[in-house]
Amino acid sequence: MTYLSASGSELTGGSMWVCGALGARIPAQLRRRLFPASRRRRPAAAAFSASAEPSRVRALVYEHHGDPAKVVEVCGHPEDEHPTLPPRGGQNAFSEDMRSKLSPPEDQALSSACFCLPCRSYGITGVQPLPQRSHCDLIQCGICRMKAEASLRVALKNLELAAVGRSDVHVKMLAAPVNPSDINMIQGNYGLLPKLPAVGGNEGVGQVIAVGSSVTGVKPGDWVIPANAGLGTWRTEAVFSEEALISVPSDIPLQSAATLGVNPCTAYRMLMDFERLRPGDSVIQNASNSGVGQAVIQIAAALGLRTINVVRDRPDIQKLTDRLKNLGAHHVVTEEELRKHEMKNFFKDVPQPQLALNCVGGKSSTELLRHLAPGGTMVTYGGMAKQPVIASVSLLIFKDLKLRGFWLSQWKKDHSPDQFKELILTLCDLIHRGQLTAPACSEAPLQEYQRALEASMQPFVSSKQILTM
Amino acid sequence: MTYLSASGSELTGGSMWVCGALGARIPAQLRRRLFPASRRRRPAAAAFSASAEPSRVRALVYEHHGDPAKVVEVCGHPEDEHPTLPPRGGQNAFSEDMRSKLSPPEDQALSSACFCLPCRSYGITGVQPLPQRSHCDLIQCGICRMKAEASLRVALKNLELAAVGRSDVHVKMLAAPVNPSDINMIQGNYGLLPKLPAVGGNEGVGQVIAVGSSVTGVKPGDWVIPANAGLGTWRTEAVFSEEALISVPSDIPLQSAATLGVNPCTAYRMLMDFERLRPGDSVIQNASNSGVGQAVIQIAAALGLRTINVVRDRPDIQKLTDRLKNLGAHHVVTEEELRKHEMKNFFKDVPQPQLALNCVGGKSSTELLRHLAPGGTMVTYGGMAKQPVIASVSLLIFKDLKLRGFWLSQWKKDHSPDQFKELILTLCDLIHRGQLTAPACSEAPLQEYQRALEASMQPFVSSKQILTM
Repeated sequence: MTYLSASGSELTGGSMWVCGALGARIPAQLRRRLFPASRRRRPAAAAFSASAEPSRVRALVYEHHGDPAKVVEVCGHPEDEHPTLPPRGGQNAFSEDMRSKLSPPEDQALSSACFCLPCRSYGITGVQPLPQRSHCDLIQCGICRMKAEASLRVALKNLELAAVGRSDVHVKMLAAPVNPSDINMIQGNYGLLPKLPAVGGNEGVGQVIAVGSSVTGVKPGDWVIPANAGLGTWRTEAVFSEEALISVPSDIPLQSAATLGVNPCTAYRMLMDFERLRPGDSVIQNASNSGVGQAVIQIAAALGLRTINVVRDRPDIQKLTDRLKNLGAHHVVTEEELRKHEMKNFFKDVPQPQLALNCVGGKSSTELLRHLAPGGTMVTYGGMAKQPVIASVSLLIFKDLKLRGFWLSQWKKDHSPDQFKELILTLCDLIHRGQLTAPACSEAPLQEYQRALEASMQPFVSSKQILTM
Repeated sequence: MTYLSASGSELTGGSMWVCGALGARIPAQLRRRLFPASRRRRPAAAAFSASAEPSRVRALVYEHHGDPAKVVEVCGHPEDEHPTLPPRGGQNAFSEDMRSKLSPPEDQALSSACFCLPCRSYGITGVQPLPQRSHCDLIQCGICRMKAEASLRVALKNLELAAVGRSDVHVKMLAAPVNPSDINMIQGNYGLLPKLPAVGGNEGVGQVIAVGSSVTGVKPGDWVIPANAGLGTWRTEAVFSEEALISVPSDIPLQSAATLGVNPCTAYRMLMDFERLRPGDSVIQNASNSGVGQAVIQIAAALGLRTINVVRDRPDIQKLTDRLKNLGAHHVVTEEELRKHEMKNFFKDVPQPQLALNCVGGKSSTELLRHLAPGGTMVTYGGMAKQPVIASVSLLIFKDLKLRGFWLSQWKKDHSPDQFKELILTLCDLIHRGQLTAPACSEAPLQEYQRALEASMQPFVSSKQILTM
């Protein structure tokens, strides 16, 4: 359920975005974001290679972080009658001052109150509700579990291409996936937020068209992927600095290259960095059908580890089970099965996992914790349920369970570019050996981005959307 | 709110406990628990020194783990009308078979249902309610936050003293505190549960009266403390094996010796083992007025660390603040103050803590997490609020917060007895230097145990109860 403005249409309340006329109207701040090499910008015509006509350089741009939020379920409890909420006007209540800033349509939402479970502070639906931004993934009514979800507004725009400076690389993007973290970043629910407006997309693969005079690491024809998040990959072409890119072999499948830089890297590091696992050990994960989940299954199988893969029940569960087992999954169980008492018998035959990988949060993460071996670690890398992780005090103390988080961007900050390149090469080696394939993908041309974004946010998605340029 | 049977009275449903006649009636299993050296037992008379008349050997004994539970707040939602509970008879519902086992008074409690937040399985008040024992500290109504609390049944009994074998030590107990973990163990909510019936109390100090022929580590007159939990210190005398004891200098205050083996050890290890802290760094903790909390304040001050001490608001808050500051606390804030937006300004002057120590759980632990520095660790060592730890997914991922647990018994299993002795000596050194004192204590003779236990379980306790023998 997203709000998407029509391709090429005007973004709400901002400057006009008109094909071919952008250069004259774009604010200076946006110009710097969209054109990293703008300090060396020469007249536009000179910056384009023969294969890149100005009118053909298009990008998916967003200029708001999902404002206003959209209520996806309606709360039936008016604020004043909310049984568990603190009295209105209390310390944590939304102040009258904040109310006065709401526009009339948003003010109508005031009769539905929700509050932040961890900090128990008020929020109201219809606006970005909570004072503590760090809790914004936890917006939830304490009674009816109503959730507020930020809307998504992106638009396909024509952009001017920057000139290729000495240490720059002109790249034609080939393919770029739509990951949950891309959506989170647009919605403002991510640890790294670019200045707005910005081009969406954090990973993808492109082909080098031209390089500046001092570039030595890549040459025309090479395939490249972003070195870090936030580059903006949902565009047809761009000029990037050399250090923003990493080359990958061009003999791997296009979908593998396009989806290599985030999910398989996350999967590999989580399997390697938190517990010392040996062949035969088991790992439990939820969201097993996600991009990371499928990479975990394959990399774990290559390492000789057994995976216990938790998925949500669905009509075609057997089809999904078969597909994950074909990838190398040892066990596939539904969230409902995991809660059953019979799981005790399951762990008579399968070693209790020392590592749990959590992309969901809430009840699902509590179940993973319950099945961890003493001393084990649960690594959280996503919160698809938009609920916090709930951990039993006694499991922390008496079973010595450890709760950690993983964020690839932080790992990259803590490690050298060469270490990241080594990681990419390790994964490419698995791809060459046939041990790591891209997740199930659906390709969509860039201009069909609305359909692709909507499809990527549907429940029970079994196919990753890949934008092709 | 506890149920305590009268001193020396019969325990419910068990064998008769009569002064002086215990030896003939006590079951074999109980005999082994109460008298560790029973394999070498000689006629009772021979086992007593001149100072230990059989009739004077008394102990606080429990034979039930807080069964039946007692509802401390009444839930207003009949089970069938409970808005968020799954339908009665569902997969997790309490079965009719289990209902049929309830005695009539307990059955009356059926109209009040509570359920386990993490596993969402049913419980009913009036019985030990949940199938997953690991969640038993989380029994809570999802709507009205009703909690069930196990009752406490202990009784003062006359026990026969075992003979002193070759490697045994005859100890006259001098003083033994009442710790929250002692209460949890009696209630069955602890990671280590002795076979029942058992003598209560996990720490304390005693004086050696006599030793077996092969004992070399201690001699008559020495002071000793238990090497491990579960020894049963709430008794006047006992015969223990030498390896169950650790000697401590007898020139430290009695209250310091009696409270040395659990709380200061826990405080010291938590400060040393999770984050590499340097003088000037800060540490945040809740339950700062607890035994561990007061030890943390003093040991941290000795290490040059700044402590931010969170306490519950109360009428005499200034008195408590002054007392904790006299111990070395740098900052004392109430739970309410910690939730205020103004705490942002507080952390402009005070370095954000890298370490948080959590003895409460629930909302309080979520607040500690919110104020941790990026990459910091929260160590949970207690759950006084009987609510789980709730952690924001985004704090785990983007702030790289770590959640751990600490249990001294596990630390002892993972380390050698010599390492524990070294820890005790380190703490005694702090005591000798005047840098570590016992927490505020109230002494009560053993026979006044009812008053002492009740006092130890009152809210806002500012004084640790110490039983003297």
